[in-house]
Amino acid sequence: MKQKIKEHSIQLFDKKGFTSTSIQDIVESIGVTKGTFYYYYTSKEQLLMEIHLQFIDEVLNEQEEVINDSKKSFSDKLFEVIYLSLMDIKKQGPSAKVFYREMRHLNPESLTEIKAKRDLYRFNIEKLLNEGIKNGDLRSDLDVPIVSFGILGVMNWSYEWYNAEGQKNAFEIAKSFQDMILKGIKVEE
Amino acid sequence: MKQKIKEHSIQLFDKKGFTSTSIQDIVESIGVTKGTFYYYYTSKEQLLMEIHLQFIDEVLNEQEEVINDSKKSFSDKLFEVIYLSLMDIKKQGPSAKVFYREMRHLNPESLTEIKAKRDLYRFNIEKLLNEGIKNGDLRSDLDVPIVSFGILGVMNWSYEWYNAEGQKNAFEIAKSFQDMILKGIKVEE
Repeated sequence: MKQKIKEHSIQLFDKKGFTSTSIQDIVESIGVTKGTFYYYYTSKEQLLMEIHLQFIDEVLNEQEEVINDSKKSFSDKLFEVIYLSLMDIKKQGPSAKVFYREMRHLNPESLTEIKAKRDLYRFNIEKLLNEGIKNGDLRSDLDVPIVSFGILGVMNWSYEWYNAEGQKNAFEIAKSFQDMILKGIKVEE
Repeated sequence: MKQKIKEHSIQLFDKKGFTSTSIQDIVESIGVTKGTFYYYYTSKEQLLMEIHLQFIDEVLNEQEEVINDSKKSFSDKLFEVIYLSLMDIKKQGPSAKVFYREMRHLNPESLTEIKAKRDLYRFNIEKLLNEGIKNGDLRSDLDVPIVSFGILGVMNWSYEWYNAEGQKNAFEIAKSFQDMILKGIKVEE
């Protein structure tokens, strides 16, 4: 039931927004009473936090598994991190939207915790780039923090447009992005 | 007064969200009555549409001015389009956030109009890339639609993290992004 409340809430928050969705809306959509809601959650904010945590923890675990795999090359790691982010949209699209849009409705302590995890995701990308520079795979003149934001932009923006039923699949898109980020778009001089 | 209502509403929508902000909140923040609001706007949705239109029209005009300048090289155009997007965040940061977050609260006709303008912004990037390929500046094996989404991601994501008072200025950041997109991050083989 707890998972069901979460799933229905994600759908409602995605459609109507967090503030416009009442606890009454949530319980009605499942056909239970408010008592059931309060058996599992103390407030709508606590539920929102659980949705955020579930999303970011899953995303972080997947990312770290790839990044810490010493058998993979830099190029493969970059591809897989991008590919995973597209698969996450497919798997948990509405969660991703709720994550990005409704963060400001978390209470201050929750927000601090979520922001730290978001930052960790970014620092892992920085770490990956720094390793690539050290290994001689990447150009040593890169501005690592800015390039990290650029790569995150390429990845995160896809939740705005990526359609899992679209013409191109996640594999092809991740390949194009990997290629663009590694080699750039310009003809070599 | 019309502009003032718009400015105060943008602040409130940014802070509290569109749905949680009432017309009463808006008029109270300026110290006028609801009558004043209804003299200029028929509804909160109409006001939201005006905010969206003002933002996207300005952004589109700036972009097209750069892209249609036949004296500029591809590299310069790419730099300027990225630089302008960072300057827009500086100039109209809360508008940008309201634009991305609250779009789904527009009425269906307004949404169609705004989406067409967003698409136009993207198609202009595709046009720029196609010209670059034709001129021999860019690699001919690029997947233009996907690369366009990638470039838009780099640019649009910056409204999530760019701080106009931060360590690096818009010029430096746009240079790093231009470099990353043109040359990639990998050491040439």
